[in-house]
Amino acid sequence: MPEQNLAAVKSALSEQRIETPSWAYGNSGTRFKVFAQAGVPRTVREKLDDAARVHRHTGAAPTVALHIPWDRVEGAGAYAALASYAQERGLRLGTVNANVFQEDDYKLGSVTNPDPAVRRKALDHLMECVDIMDATGSRDLKLWFSDGTNYPGQDDLRARQDRLAEALWAVYERLGSGQRLVLEYKLFEPAFYATDVPDWGTSYAHCLKLGPKARVCVDTGHHAPGTNIEFIAAFLLREGKLGAFDFNSRFYADDDLMAGAADPFQLFRILYEVRAGGGLDGTPERAAQSDEGPGIAFMLDQCHNIEPKIPAIIRSVMNVQEATAKALLVDREALAEAQRAGDVLGANGVLMDAYHTDVRPLLAEVREEWGADADPMAAYAASGWAETVVRERVGGQQAGWGA
Amino acid sequence: MPEQNLAAVKSALSEQRIETPSWAYGNSGTRFKVFAQAGVPRTVREKLDDAARVHRHTGAAPTVALHIPWDRVEGAGAYAALASYAQERGLRLGTVNANVFQEDDYKLGSVTNPDPAVRRKALDHLMECVDIMDATGSRDLKLWFSDGTNYPGQDDLRARQDRLAEALWAVYERLGSGQRLVLEYKLFEPAFYATDVPDWGTSYAHCLKLGPKARVCVDTGHHAPGTNIEFIAAFLLREGKLGAFDFNSRFYADDDLMAGAADPFQLFRILYEVRAGGGLDGTPERAAQSDEGPGIAFMLDQCHNIEPKIPAIIRSVMNVQEATAKALLVDREALAEAQRAGDVLGANGVLMDAYHTDVRPLLAEVREEWGADADPMAAYAASGWAETVVRERVGGQQAGWGA
Amino acid sequence: MPEQNLAAVKSALSEQRIETPSWAYGNSGTRFKVFAQAGVPRTVREKLDDAARVHRHTGAAPTVALHIPWDRVEGAGAYAALASYAQERGLRLGTVNANVFQEDDYKLGSVTNPDPAVRRKALDHLMECVDIMDATGSRDLKLWFSDGTNYPGQDDLRARQDRLAEALWAVYERLGSGQRLVLEYKLFEPAFYATDVPDWGTSYAHCLKLGPKARVCVDTGHHAPGTNIEFIAAFLLREGKLGAFDFNSRFYADDDLMAGAADPFQLFRILYEVRAGGGLDGTPERAAQSDEGPGIAFMLDQCHNIEPKIPAIIRSVMNVQEATAKALLVDREALAEAQRAGDVLGANGVLMDAYHTDVRPLLAEVREEWGADADPMAAYAASGWAETVVRERVGGQQAGWGA
Amino acid sequence: MPEQNLAAVKSALSEQRIETPSWAYGNSGTRFKVFAQAGVPRTVREKLDDAARVHRHTGAAPTVALHIPWDRVEGAGAYAALASYAQERGLRLGTVNANVFQEDDYKLGSVTNPDPAVRRKALDHLMECVDIMDATGSRDLKLWFSDGTNYPGQDDLRARQDRLAEALWAVYERLGSGQRLVLEYKLFEPAFYATDVPDWGTSYAHCLKLGPKARVCVDTGHHAPGTNIEFIAAFLLREGKLGAFDFNSRFYADDDLMAGAADPFQLFRILYEVRAGGGLDGTPERAAQSDEGPGIAFMLDQCHNIEPKIPAIIRSVMNVQEATAKALLVDREALAEAQRAGDVLGANGVLMDAYHTDVRPLLAEVREEWGADADPMAAYAASGWAETVVRERVGGQQAGWGA
Repeated sequence: MPEQNLAAVKSALSEQRIETPSWAYGNSGTRFKVFAQAGVPRTVREKLDDAARVHRHTGAAPTVALHIPWDRVEGAGAYAALASYAQERGLRLGTVNANVFQEDDYKLGSVTNPDPAVRRKALDHLMECVDIMDATGSRDLKLWFSDGTNYPGQDDLRARQDRLAEALWAVYERLGSGQRLVLEYKLFEPAFYATDVPDWGTSYAHCLKLGPKARVCVDTGHHAPGTNIEFIAAFLLREGKLGAFDFNSRFYADDDLMAGAADPFQLFRILYEVRAGGGLDGTPERAAQSDEGPGIAFMLDQCHNIEPKIPAIIRSVMNVQEATAKALLVDREALAEAQRAGDVLGANGVLMDAYHTDVRPLLAEVREEWGADADPMAAYAASGWAETVVRERVGGQQAGWGA
Repeated sequence: MPEQNLAAVKSALSEQRIETPSWAYGNSGTRFKVFAQAGVPRTVREKLDDAARVHRHTGAAPTVALHIPWDRVEGAGAYAALASYAQERGLRLGTVNANVFQEDDYKLGSVTNPDPAVRRKALDHLMECVDIMDATGSRDLKLWFSDGTNYPGQDDLRARQDRLAEALWAVYERLGSGQRLVLEYKLFEPAFYATDVPDWGTSYAHCLKLGPKARVCVDTGHHAPGTNIEFIAAFLLREGKLGAFDFNSRFYADDDLMAGAADPFQLFRILYEVRAGGGLDGTPERAAQSDEGPGIAFMLDQCHNIEPKIPAIIRSVMNVQEATAKALLVDREALAEAQRAGDVLGANGVLMDAYHTDVRPLLAEVREEWGADADPMAAYAASGWAETVVRERVGGQQAGWGA
Repeated sequence: MPEQNLAAVKSALSEQRIETPSWAYGNSGTRFKVFAQAGVPRTVREKLDDAARVHRHTGAAPTVALHIPWDRVEGAGAYAALASYAQERGLRLGTVNANVFQEDDYKLGSVTNPDPAVRRKALDHLMECVDIMDATGSRDLKLWFSDGTNYPGQDDLRARQDRLAEALWAVYERLGSGQRLVLEYKLFEPAFYATDVPDWGTSYAHCLKLGPKARVCVDTGHHAPGTNIEFIAAFLLREGKLGAFDFNSRFYADDDLMAGAADPFQLFRILYEVRAGGGLDGTPERAAQSDEGPGIAFMLDQCHNIEPKIPAIIRSVMNVQEATAKALLVDREALAEAQRAGDVLGANGVLMDAYHTDVRPLLAEVREEWGADADPMAAYAASGWAETVVRERVGGQQAGWGA
Repeated sequence: MPEQNLAAVKSALSEQRIETPSWAYGNSGTRFKVFAQAGVPRTVREKLDDAARVHRHTGAAPTVALHIPWDRVEGAGAYAALASYAQERGLRLGTVNANVFQEDDYKLGSVTNPDPAVRRKALDHLMECVDIMDATGSRDLKLWFSDGTNYPGQDDLRARQDRLAEALWAVYERLGSGQRLVLEYKLFEPAFYATDVPDWGTSYAHCLKLGPKARVCVDTGHHAPGTNIEFIAAFLLREGKLGAFDFNSRFYADDDLMAGAADPFQLFRILYEVRAGGGLDGTPERAAQSDEGPGIAFMLDQCHNIEPKIPAIIRSVMNVQEATAKALLVDREALAEAQRAGDVLGANGVLMDAYHTDVRPLLAEVREEWGADADPMAAYAASGWAETVVRERVGGQQAGWGA
């Protein structure tokens, strides 16, 4: 690779930011069991402490997504204080995730509930989330609705879309300058018959009507088997409607394994389409300050049910970086030429060439250049942090899904 | 059920028209083998002869979809003559299906091919299909593109969308008054990596840009496992973008079994959403003459690889009718009340009540009222047609996929 | 249908017993939320009270499956007392379900855990379950292992099979006369990379080595998409290795919806194969006392996350009965003749004829003949039980998964 | 990696043999279209000529699988002559594939057909295949049955198993010393309701009853979505019942893409389990001459519908080799230690370390050591063979599926 191109690859890698989710630092599990781990944070501040370790070692994870109410702080100036706390640790508060699925009222849905009182309550919560964004300076409101039905006939599918559209519109109108909403879709779970936003088409159709501040959020674990996720990414980029990724991986359903763990080739293909569609050209920060660039948020959204959480997150950040590095190494000119020529094996070969490259040395070099650790996993292990938190975080209530 | 409601059910049933596909009368098969059947048509006229038998016995299948070039007829006035031939048999020519997948030129795609010469050729064919529609008086042009890629990197996913949009636009502009295009989607096969129109979202996004004459065609066998098809139907109806159904059924992929054979409950749920969305309120004929009603075309698109074709088509028509009858029997008021009350089991029960009803006697009655046979399968078997065609259709080239 | 045949159908229906699971009476949910319901049992005795209502109205659910430790009772003679309590309510204690997935020790597996101490603990629990069977007189020990791995490389797949075989052998040796073990399989969840007993083949292979007291348990929600469950039932019956069904239904994964709710046609096909394979010829009771008959246990294993639990269980029992009734109505002679003749449509038609029949009147009649309610749903609703338990079951800890 | 270990890796790589299928050199396609390619072989000898090029450049593909009747040669001594022809080109004739799916008689099945005359015909063909094995010296008879049904009720599932068992037994009895049968399974296609050998469990159960000469053949494209293929490989190796692999890859169903093209990580995981289970310890040749080693046949079974066939096969051979090399590089000791310690991330890390390694330089080195080309793709492209066959293979009938 020519020196000049390599410099561009390194530059793009150094600009990529991967947001980590506050909830991934806490306990999680399946419906069968949540296994507690020693040293897990008990407060949002302790989650930020952990996130700061991830950023220290990787240099690539400066923002942390919040989940409300899990990360709610009370009192005047509480979010500003939280933002300061983050800043002192080299972090910023990122996307605000609304949660309208963990109260008994939401049994039959939140914004699509047949009961208008429940819908109002849910909408109030969404509005609170925008208030919090105002306080934290977050750009994105992420909306994932668990809303749906378990049995045919349980509710009117179309009426639920009407209610959804109404709530989305109310939130959209409330968004301030520089704020966006990203609408996540998911095929199933916890709804087992019909989910109200089950696929990208549904999210896209709603976002299109809402306007430019509404974008689709692609969670890589939320599709039917066989779905070509990179196609969706490419399509949405072409439409200017790709807002965010929730990275994680799966062998079966929404397994929420570490990004890149189940199908590293798929992650590479997705990131190649992101690159090809210009999605690596503008960092979210840059996009937040101007209208340039696609402004795609790269986030992790995963659960570390059995593995230690901090190193799992470090590994995931690295996996996204490795896939990105490979995507950047694809020789676009050679690829375009083979494609034009209808050279199936040649074009595929150009792509695979980049994928087969071992990019770990390159990333080690890049990390050192930007002051992080060449080997973040080893550096974290050597840091003693894991032992410290086990020793110090005793008593209190561990953070976890719903906590 | 009150007498008045029953009359409405009967009336709706008597208005439903199910279009049969000319190709289903010919031989078909898998890549492993096409099994020939005795008596299979050798010409489009013989296909119409068979279709007339289906309509005679069911009274519900007056139109026949054509596939070009399989059903191409040559010479001045040839299509008008074909239309007359159909009319003499009580039929009309229906949807025109373009075929841009069975020539060697289309190996790497038709309208999305990287080679502009191939794209031009494909577009010419699409334009020819509209010419044929002018001659036959058909309302709908059905576009299914097998276009896609088999290997990552083989072609540029986004560029292919650009080419697709360009071709669609050209066709759309060419459509005459009262003509529509319906854009079909399919997850995979024959493309095995990325299909250019893989899902309803892609079809919807293109149709939305094209305008009101472009609608989505839902083939019930073209989805990823687990996809909720009735949700898609409900969503598209709400958007005014549902144009047509290609009915068939499947256990696995695009198996193209008889409609309703693999999952009769799913077919019922789909038709219930069609009813709930107003999709049974206007027949295609009515919609073609005015702007009233949704104008959804109900078509079969299936293959009878091992079973005799005419009775298989009769059975499929009956299956769609039975599912429709059950959908019409759903007590909408009771359902709405249970839904409003959040009564999960009650609402589901109302739906299931209709599904569990044996509607065969009702349909027998309705058929007799409109002059068809109470038991179309038995009537066909008794008619001697199967024996006649075996005896008479000797020599020549049997019709089949590609023939 | 000839009078004589109808009598046989009724007789078979009256002999079918459907076991209900104690845990289905308690709260359940997804990893996102467990929604509590008013009036839910707080003790195993209250679960039996509820089960007695199901049996009273349906007349077909006289046994209740226990889950240990959820239903553990302490003290000398405690299980005998529980059995008496059941008996006084017209019930018997049924299958004992071992639970080796809800303690922190089992994070990396139970009987396949790399740590021998954990394996020993798990085995001790299995042995305790057989002790309980001795006390309750239960015939079957149901073994479902959540054991598996989330990440490639996490553990040695083959070594885990060795450990599994060792534990199974120890349990098998411990079984008393008239006792059996049924080994359940499940594709995934909670393990997301490799489950140690993921499919029927694995369960079958282990059971075959163990001997005649070991049989496969088929949970209808535990398969990969597209799996033909009735084929598995037919195959295992042919091999004499089908031990039990866990009925429930799903649209996506292990959704645990009410049996028959998602795909009633599939449930019918399964029960038809059970009938065809002789699986309805012997009730479990009869089989327990002799070697006659296949001795298949028909159990429900499902979760009622959003619907009221008792009527949901009643509905599920009715759904299994309706599917069974339809299976019994299949005209076996006509079917065999059409099959012999290679008459694809004819043979399919014979099957569908039975499926399309509305068997609800027949079942109402049969229920009244055996002294249950013609309409169990209505009878339960009218009984006032739901209101009673809401009023009386106040305070204490509601039963639920893990409780 | 210590010098000594590297030598072992190289040695294992140099012993791996990958059999190529004669039919992959001919045209293939989907049910929609078979695209013809210039220069495609017209005879089995020309297929061998092409296979010889693959072996020349890769040094790893010395045997060619035959498909009967596609590769049938007539006359006394015809197969011996064919074997000589192969030998002169450095090849041997490999597995004999029976084909009982491409005649009209097989519409409703071959060995499981309800018609005994068809069953007899099919069995005769299988016997002929063993005769051919006698003549060619092939070790393995590969049996894939397309047999199954398209509609519920079409035939008796259990009776079909009886017929299958009878046919298998007859073939097994006929096998000579040193001969084996490998029984392939496939979920669906061309049967769309129930396939008679749909999964590994069915194949395993039959092979177990037959005896030691019967083994399971795992085609990597023949599973339900989500199936963990490496688990099956590990399980069958533990049981001594893994006979062969048919390598190919897929994104959706039985796409028959180039091995390793769709999910290279999966191919690596499969080959890791093969290695861990001792499956790389004995080459088929060695196993054929003795009872040592597992004797697994590594075969390609794929279709090159749109890409040029010879380089596609070369690429596939290389993909299998690369996956094997990575599997061999896994540090088994470090892995076992991490597994014992329950170190989830550590154990996964050991595996991923090998996967992320770029093994192309190593394989280039190994190839040169054994006299093949360091870069087989480039060497083939430079050889002029593609141009030669296009020029010379004019006229006649191109080979293809069914030809």
